[in-house]
Amino acid sequence: MIKGLQSIQFDEAPYIQAGASVVGKKEGEGPLAKLFDEIEQDPMFGKDSWEEAESEIQRRAAMRVINKSNLQKSEIRYLFSGDLLEQETATSFGLMDLEIPLFGLYGACSTMGEAMSLGAMVVAGGFAENVIAMASSHFASAEKQFRFPLEYGTQRVPSAQWTVTGSGAIIIGKKRSHVRITGITTGKIVDMGVKDSMNMGACMAPAACDTLYQHMMDFDRKPEDYDRIVTGDLGYVGRDIIIELMKQKGFDISQNYSDCGIKMFDKETQDTHAGGSGCGCSATVFCAYYLRELEKGNIKRMLFMPTGALLSKVSFNEGRTVPGIAHAVVLEHC
Amino acid sequence: MIKGLQSIQFDEAPYIQAGASVVGKKEGEGPLAKLFDEIEQDPMFGKDSWEEAESEIQRRAAMRVINKSNLQKSEIRYLFSGDLLEQETATSFGLMDLEIPLFGLYGACSTMGEAMSLGAMVVAGGFAENVIAMASSHFASAEKQFRFPLEYGTQRVPSAQWTVTGSGAIIIGKKRSHVRITGITTGKIVDMGVKDSMNMGACMAPAACDTLYQHMMDFDRKPEDYDRIVTGDLGYVGRDIIIELMKQKGFDISQNYSDCGIKMFDKETQDTHAGGSGCGCSATVFCAYYLRELEKGNIKRMLFMPTGALLSKVSFNEGRTVPGIAHAVVLEHC
Repeated sequence: MIKGLQSIQFDEAPYIQAGASVVGKKEGEGPLAKLFDEIEQDPMFGKDSWEEAESEIQRRAAMRVINKSNLQKSEIRYLFSGDLLEQETATSFGLMDLEIPLFGLYGACSTMGEAMSLGAMVVAGGFAENVIAMASSHFASAEKQFRFPLEYGTQRVPSAQWTVTGSGAIIIGKKRSHVRITGITTGKIVDMGVKDSMNMGACMAPAACDTLYQHMMDFDRKPEDYDRIVTGDLGYVGRDIIIELMKQKGFDISQNYSDCGIKMFDKETQDTHAGGSGCGCSATVFCAYYLRELEKGNIKRMLFMPTGALLSKVSFNEGRTVPGIAHAVVLEHC
Repeated sequence: MIKGLQSIQFDEAPYIQAGASVVGKKEGEGPLAKLFDEIEQDPMFGKDSWEEAESEIQRRAAMRVINKSNLQKSEIRYLFSGDLLEQETATSFGLMDLEIPLFGLYGACSTMGEAMSLGAMVVAGGFAENVIAMASSHFASAEKQFRFPLEYGTQRVPSAQWTVTGSGAIIIGKKRSHVRITGITTGKIVDMGVKDSMNMGACMAPAACDTLYQHMMDFDRKPEDYDRIVTGDLGYVGRDIIIELMKQKGFDISQNYSDCGIKMFDKETQDTHAGGSGCGCSATVFCAYYLRELEKGNIKRMLFMPTGALLSKVSFNEGRTVPGIAHAVVLEHC
């Protein structure tokens, strides 16, 4: 069950009961448009502030996944959720009405991987029949939080990524379905000294490489053992770095590697520079696209690895580096 | 194993291998002075910013608890930790050097309860031999984060609490010791509409009452079944509220109730108004005082219930309420 240095292989692998995704207008104009459960045209989601809008996204994603699963709210034992805002207010205000015990998580944009890892352990350990794992982000609340308010009209550098407005939620449970979480590899904080908060791909790629390499060691596997190896939001810049870093360690992932930040937007027409990012990026792309491919059996086994950049505007302004973290989850069709 | 609506009773209850606490000067002048493992006189902990100081506190607490346990760093499978800063930078920068897989948590001041709950499940589920559960806060980084920079010299209202400078860490593991975590009750977000961020006790008391009442229902217990029922940081204001709220629900906790925020400082001489607060408050008071009492058998069974106020300065400035959450952990001498 405990596997190598940082991994677990589940003896009784839990199943994904359902997945749901709620996104904003721009995400709904991208290549995955037809796969989202809900596309909201109003960037405020009917609320008065960006923070309340993000709370509303979480609330809708949670309600949708419960409805899709045909479970009752009372059958969900725990919520595992987080977001990018100061003190996670999107989660606190968004999930309040559900009245389900909450484990608030912070893994920056790796939060969906963290939520799925803990959720899978709690179900596999016999501590719950069903739990929700979810995460959210909102373009405008994130820009306000980490960079500049939108009203400034600040120009974006080519390496900048576009925070996804959206929330993805899955229910992990014991009931048989066509997708199982069969293993996890939990990441360490990795700091290579990168300080550029406008180049998140470069900040996070070393952490993704660290977790991915350890995963291959712990499970004694090769990239070819996976139909897809998918990071959360390394984008175009981070993609090139992780492929190169893994090559230096003797693994060629170029053939089956993909990234949710690249999948989310159309590079040519959507002006999103280095790709999508945010907790909501990997969460929504997983729920909308990869989970369906796994359910259909088009993907038999994948490694899903959300990536996080551990900074705040205070740490950035104080000249600190931007460490990264990445949590890997093995998903298999059955 | 699953117990009632929100609880777990562990079939194979994990043990606490060791606990350690690192605090600041003011905490070291309080009634628990002799019980802390380290009292640092320099509020900056030798660093250049309040945020770095708090990171240093976490690093020291983690190193100390590992040393006290006689375990090697490599024998710790996971870190469960969190803090109050924006995007949890105290945790990210403080625990980086340990190179141990990290689950970042956010439960506001309830984080130690959340960390102990998840850590206990992960060990009891067979997913780790040893994990660290910890949390931190720092008076100056918290004032800067949530209220006003210290340089303003703002006057404090009588209901205000004093954020504890400190970090407490425990190792939860399988090896037999004299203290076990035998159960948990995980809290929901509870919002009674209180908006006063200078009166955290009133914000958190309803959540503490909600978790405590549900705990009694789930385990079919009464307050007398515990030698102590201890909240994290309700302080003097919150204490009166929870005793009253529980009385309305038919439970008299006045005889065995206590609060870490009350225990930490001397009300008469330390000018801390309604008592201590912060993630570090319950974490350090538990490690310094209650864990020792449990080890000695002076306390046979206690309910430890860290309490959190789920606000940010943005949510406060936007006029939102301050919801609360509380996570209860059952500890028994053996």
